[in-house]
Order: sequence, then structure tokens, then C-alpha cells
Amino acid sequence: MDVRVNAAISADGKLSSRRREQIAISGERDFDRVDGLRAESDAVMVGVGTILADNPSLTIDESERQEQRRQNGQPENPARVVADSHVRTPPDAAVLDDSAETYLLVSDAAPSDFVAQMEEQGATVIATGENRADLASAFQELDSHGVEQLFVEGGGEVIYSLFEDELVDRLSVFVGSLVIGGRDAPTLADGDGFIEDFPQLELDTVTQVDDGVVLEYDVLN
Amino acid sequence: MDVRVNAAISADGKLSSRRREQIAISGERDFDRVDGLRAESDAVMVGVGTILADNPSLTIDESERQEQRRQNGQPENPARVVADSHVRTPPDAAVLDDSAETYLLVSDAAPSDFVAQMEEQGATVIATGENRADLASAFQELDSHGVEQLFVEGGGEVIYSLFEDELVDRLSVFVGSLVIGGRDAPTLADGDGFIEDFPQLELDTVTQVDDGVVLEYDVLN
Repeated sequence: MDVRVNAAISADGKLSSRRREQIAISGERDFDRVDGLRAESDAVMVGVGTILADNPSLTIDESERQEQRRQNGQPENPARVVADSHVRTPPDAAVLDDSAETYLLVSDAAPSDFVAQMEEQGATVIATGENRADLASAFQELDSHGVEQLFVEGGGEVIYSLFEDELVDRLSVFVGSLVIGGRDAPTLADGDGFIEDFPQLELDTVTQVDDGVVLEYDVLN
Repeated sequence: MDVRVNAAISADGKLSSRRREQIAISGERDFDRVDGLRAESDAVMVGVGTILADNPSLTIDESERQEQRRQNGQPENPARVVADSHVRTPPDAAVLDDSAETYLLVSDAAPSDFVAQMEEQGATVIATGENRADLASAFQELDSHGVEQLFVEGGGEVIYSLFEDELVDRLSVFVGSLVIGGRDAPTLADGDGFIEDFPQLELDTVTQVDDGVVLEYDVLN
């Protein structure tokens, strides 16, 4: 499976303010770039924190891109994948609507009533790992469902976990021209953080987009 | 006074790991770029956190640049400025050596024995603000000492305070090709963080340096 991570950050590395409200970091051209990346993917993944903060549907905006996918024999929208070790996805989350397939990645400790409720909403629940979803195993299972291109849109906890498990192949970052600040504001990669053996990147392209810049990296695993 | 901030961050916005140890984020060419910026400045400023973590001398590395300054009738090294509201600068800090003038920015609450000890070490203590140094007032006093170009090298608490007080004119950021991660790792701008009226930047130049990229911004105050 090919895993690509994308996020928009402020010049100081933040995904949003300490209040975790959505902030306009990028602009129209970057939204369009991200929409194109979604359309090239078999599935779009976020952490449950993003579901709770923003309740995104993770579908494709441009109907022409959906039409193109249909012509290619693909579903109109890529599948949605939610990393949800602590089973916090609410039953009325937008990702549970019927506009695309949805996978929830939980741990083996996920209560059966939560699993039943999510399956009732049409989601496929993939349970791996003792108390936290084992992302490498979960990705193998996603792969068996035909997910070859996975596009990860955050947040910082999921992105850190993916780097920790050496599962990221490509990273693209839109760096917006503003400062958010805050020692408690979410950043591109949160989690416990590395203290040695930092994941190394190779800068591939640098492109000015909107009033910011997109940095594209290969991950040297 | 013209205030320029520079820092090297990982692709996820961190200045160092959660252990606050120095990490090689940039390389030789960026060190040289920063040395050149120091040489163009009347004073180099850091927060006391940087003094405690790294104990830098903040002097110019390249002797040719020092020679050039002497020829221009300037001191060999720019002055050093430490933002130290909570009087934590140790008496054996490298910035207190005699290779350049040193200013400590403290609050009016700074104990007189601390002030006396620092003055004994040859430092000039500037006291402003009730319980925290008032940076705008302190900068006026620095200006009266001939500091027209101030170069700020971090850390994240001082940089945030300067943005909060609308004192930054230019920001340059070296974005290194690695991931550090960590919700507790220091970032380019920490502090409480903004929740609205985010400082807006204008991206001026984008330059690939070493294995990373330098983003230079004007601050739209």
C-alpha cells in the first residue's frame, strides 16, 4: 500500500489553534490540489480527533473528478478510513453517510455494542492491536479490501503514529503565511515525539500555491 | 528598531525534541547564512530557555565577518540580549563572557541581588513591566543604546511574545527535512497561542538550502 500524508500548517507548524477550531490556513488553489489528491486515492484517512473537531465528509468536491472516477469504474468517492482506537466516532458522524464506504480502525478492546452500532451505520470495523489499533496490520486488511493508495489528511496524532510505525511513503505540507502559536495547539506530528532516529525526508518539490508554499517530501524509511 | 526572527524547524514545526536537546535540523550552509545575519545585526536575542538548554555564546563564527565589523567601526560581535523575566540566567552562562556586550531583559520584580550579580558579570540589566519584561519598552531602551537591527534566534516562547506584542518585522524559517513530533516538543511559536487575529505574513522568498528550504516572510503588522 502507498501511504501519502498531506496537511496544511501555519509557518509555526500548527494545524489549528489551541481551541482546535478550523482555521483558514490555505486557499482555493490548495483546496483544489487536495481535492485532486483525494480523487487519485482509494481511501482517505483521518484520526477520530478530526472527526470530532470538524465532522468532515471526506468526499470529493469537484463533480468532474467524481465523473472521471465513475468512468474509470471506481466508486464516485474514495473510501473513508477513521483511526479510532478509543471508539469515539459518534453515530451521526458525516463519514458514516452513504456517499462512500467507511472503515473504522479500532483495537481488539473495542466494545461489541460500539462495533454493532457502527456496522449498523454501514461501516466496516477493522479490529487490530490490544489497546490501540495496530496500524500496520489494519493497513494489510485495508489492502485486502483493495485500498492501494491511501491519502491521510491528519490530524497530528494519527500522522505521528504513522511515522512511528514507518508507514508513510510521501508527505506534502502546505505552509500558510500566518502564525498560530500555542504550546498546546495541535501540530503536524504530535504524539509522544521522537527523541532519536528522527524520520528523515527528502525534499522533492517546492511550489508556491495561494499565499503559501507546498513542500513535497519522500520519506526515507 | 528593525526586528528579524530566524529559526530552524523540522517539517512539523519543532525547534527540538520534547527533551529540548539540540538537534541538527539544518546544515553548514544554513549555519553560514545565520552567521551572516548575526554579523549584520547590532544585537542577537534569545530567551533564557535557550540559554539554559544550549548555553550558546551568540558570537560570530567567521573571523572574516568579525574583521569586517571592526573595519566598519563596529564591535567584533553584536551585543547579546536575553529575555529573562524570571531571572534564570546562570552566572556562568556563556553569554556573560567578555566577547560582546550583554543585556538582560527582566521585569521590575527582578530581585536586586540577581541584578547586582549580573551587573558584576558585566551585563546591563533592563527592567520593564510588572511581572514580565515589557518587550516594547525594553526595545525602546535597547534602541537608545544603539541597537537598530535586532536578530532574534528563539526559542518559541520569546518568538510568540514578540508576535503577541507586534514587534516582529521579518521572519525567516529554515524547514529541515525531518520529523521530530511530540505534543510537548517546542515549536517556532509557543506561548498561549492566538485564537483569532492571527499574525499575517507575506511570503517573500523561497530558497533551497542544504537539504531543506528557507522561507522568508515580511510580517504584516
